[in-house]
Amino acid sequence: MEFELGDRIRIEKDGNVYEGIVMPTTTDHVVFKMVSGYNAGIDPEGATITLLEKAQPKSAAKKEKAEKAKPSKKLPKVTILSTGGTIASKVDYRTGAVTAQFSADDIVDAIPEITEIANISGRVVYNILSENMKTEYWTELARAVAEEIENGADGIIVAHGTDTMMYSAAALSFMLKTPVPIVFVGSQRSADRPSSDNAMNAICATKVAVSDIAEVCVVMHDTTCDDRCAIHYGTKVRKMHTSRRDAFQSINCNPIGYVDYSTKRIETILPYTKRGTHELEVKATLEPKCALVKFVPGADPDILSYYIDSGYKGIVIEGTGLGHVSTDWIPNIRRATEAGIPVVMTSQCLNGRICDRVYDTGRDILKAGAIEGEDMLPEVALVKFMWALGQGGDVSEIAAVMSTSVENEITECTLK
Amino acid sequence: MEFELGDRIRIEKDGNVYEGIVMPTTTDHVVFKMVSGYNAGIDPEGATITLLEKAQPKSAAKKEKAEKAKPSKKLPKVTILSTGGTIASKVDYRTGAVTAQFSADDIVDAIPEITEIANISGRVVYNILSENMKTEYWTELARAVAEEIENGADGIIVAHGTDTMMYSAAALSFMLKTPVPIVFVGSQRSADRPSSDNAMNAICATKVAVSDIAEVCVVMHDTTCDDRCAIHYGTKVRKMHTSRRDAFQSINCNPIGYVDYSTKRIETILPYTKRGTHELEVKATLEPKCALVKFVPGADPDILSYYIDSGYKGIVIEGTGLGHVSTDWIPNIRRATEAGIPVVMTSQCLNGRICDRVYDTGRDILKAGAIEGEDMLPEVALVKFMWALGQGGDVSEIAAVMSTSVENEITECTLK
Ligand SMILES: N[C@@H](CC(=O)O)C(=O)O
Ligand SMILES: N[C@@H](CC(=O)O)C(=O)O
Repeated sequence: MEFELGDRIRIEKDGNVYEGIVMPTTTDHVVFKMVSGYNAGIDPEGATITLLEKAQPKSAAKKEKAEKAKPSKKLPKVTILSTGGTIASKVDYRTGAVTAQFSADDIVDAIPEITEIANISGRVVYNILSENMKTEYWTELARAVAEEIENGADGIIVAHGTDTMMYSAAALSFMLKTPVPIVFVGSQRSADRPSSDNAMNAICATKVAVSDIAEVCVVMHDTTCDDRCAIHYGTKVRKMHTSRRDAFQSINCNPIGYVDYSTKRIETILPYTKRGTHELEVKATLEPKCALVKFVPGADPDILSYYIDSGYKGIVIEGTGLGHVSTDWIPNIRRATEAGIPVVMTSQCLNGRICDRVYDTGRDILKAGAIEGEDMLPEVALVKFMWALGQGGDVSEIAAVMSTSVENEITECTLK
Repeated sequence: MEFELGDRIRIEKDGNVYEGIVMPTTTDHVVFKMVSGYNAGIDPEGATITLLEKAQPKSAAKKEKAEKAKPSKKLPKVTILSTGGTIASKVDYRTGAVTAQFSADDIVDAIPEITEIANISGRVVYNILSENMKTEYWTELARAVAEEIENGADGIIVAHGTDTMMYSAAALSFMLKTPVPIVFVGSQRSADRPSSDNAMNAICATKVAVSDIAEVCVVMHDTTCDDRCAIHYGTKVRKMHTSRRDAFQSINCNPIGYVDYSTKRIETILPYTKRGTHELEVKATLEPKCALVKFVPGADPDILSYYIDSGYKGIVIEGTGLGHVSTDWIPNIRRATEAGIPVVMTSQCLNGRICDRVYDTGRDILKAGAIEGEDMLPEVALVKFMWALGQGGDVSEIAAVMSTSVENEITECTLK
């Protein structure tokens, strides 16, 4: 029998009876979502399939609306650059695993509401899980974003895996001066799950992309309810939960603001650069040979020698508390700085500020030439370091850049 | 002129006039706290010093009380083992830096209230800043604690620097089965600061040490007000702020309970092992050659080779999201596991659970032989690994231990 996506069907096979809604699939199996919310895939060979109910016309209507909305001249132009991740993914129904397979256009098809906010065009830059991001991809991504802005986009959305979104958002924050919003968005739960956050995140991201907020920012669920998304500075945000929809949190500062999902209104609470303030500027060279080393008690200081001897150009240490490592690490910190490899100290506490003037070990770390990472997240300090070293300059210039806020990554007075 | 600790004095020197309260000092300088709260140190040579007011008798009375309280037979016996850190430190008034200088007895002198709760005896195990902790010190500390329990202590307090307290508390959690409470306590702000948390933390810790909670736990400020301390499992707690007094937070579970500071009452919300349930048992051997590697996008997988080739026995990876690294790390994970070096995956999100069954990269990581670290903190997974390897057993036994909750380090259902 014939059936289509969204139809409700009954399958009888080998004495078992299943009922569910037909799901998209990339295999020969019939995949359907059961009332329990679970998906099942069954080989139709030898099965009796009965159509119980045709697909609700809702999604068809949505699609038509989407197609109609596309050419509207009055709406601002937004380009979605897709890099992969869950927001651009399909579940592989054979294995149940999620792979990055969708394109930017698929996002538009899946979430047609965004075409009511902007004229959307899509561009696939990568189709990867974000754990596979690399520094050279950031450079290419920055260039692709810049091209779209040059070609007249009023706002950019970067669809990205959540795993490393904070790193990429930080990288683009440093690499681009932007006249328009550049909004990173992702989703923690894939579209086939009833609790998926992809539609709400994408809709809120589109509202920010057409707003006045010309910042590189991350727009994701603010709470576990579907009430609002937070707009985070790309340099102050961190994925703080493996699976919750409100995983993204600003650290050491508030979010720039929020998008209320029911009214679609943006309320800002922190200052931001207004649309059109900056000319587009691209400084996309990065130094990939930077290391992030997390200190743990008793760790062998030889790990620093490894990085020094392997030709690394900068080392970020994720120390303890106010920015400490054990005394036996200090000679190797000195070895690095004397070899012209700057060392930046950050804290595994994540919250709060580095202050190496309080304790003996801290003062010795400063004497060995380490730079205090202020209240930068360790991950952001790493990306900034790659960028600062990529721009060139001598060690004292790099040190000055690392100690000064370039893109809101250092807040003057850390939240207490 | 003669003056003592706590006297209010005026110093005139070189045309300048200072007023303040005399502070303890280890130098020839006169050190005093000014009304501004700042300390100053002045060479008395050539200065005119006037006594304005004698020290309040309060502290003297306190001291007398402390001495009286000491021999009381009715109170339970608590041993304070001092390892150093701020709670056992003095500010060096020449430099303003804090060094670890005090002994356990000094804590009793500074906070005589605790002698009303228990008969306190003190023992200095170390006098270090906790960033200088090492695995062999954990073994010695565990043995020292065991000795005190064998000698009749009804409860143990470990005064410890806050920087690595979570690591030490986790280590002792695995190394000891204890019939009595073993309570780690520290302070985020040194005793000379008006906002010091040392007295409240020490008093609450003493209440827990005489309580029914026979767990290795951490007792520290729960909020920034002086209202209560939280009692954390030693395996679920993390220092989450460089300077705030409520820096210690339970991750992926609630605290065991709280100590209300005004009533000194303990309220528990999670189950705990009751006093006397276990016989004392010491399994203090640790394998120090375990590494914690934090993955960042684009990081060279060669870092795993470095640890494999340097003779490490176990590797904890702090991956992204649900427990990921880039695809090019997977061959080296396999290299490690095939060489008999188990690899445990944890997440830099800190909150939430590892689940490597959802995404392609995750499934490949499992196929390469990595062990899912469940909802263990990366730091705790590292310490547990050192302990599990220290106990011996083949790779499959180690894997089983790492996947099973031994001391509450894995919660069955992670907080959502
Ligand atoms: N592992 C995925 C998770 C996600 O897309 O959210 C990624 O970061 O690409
Ligand atoms: N750096 C100090 C901080 C403290 O004592 O709290 C230590 O951990 O020893």
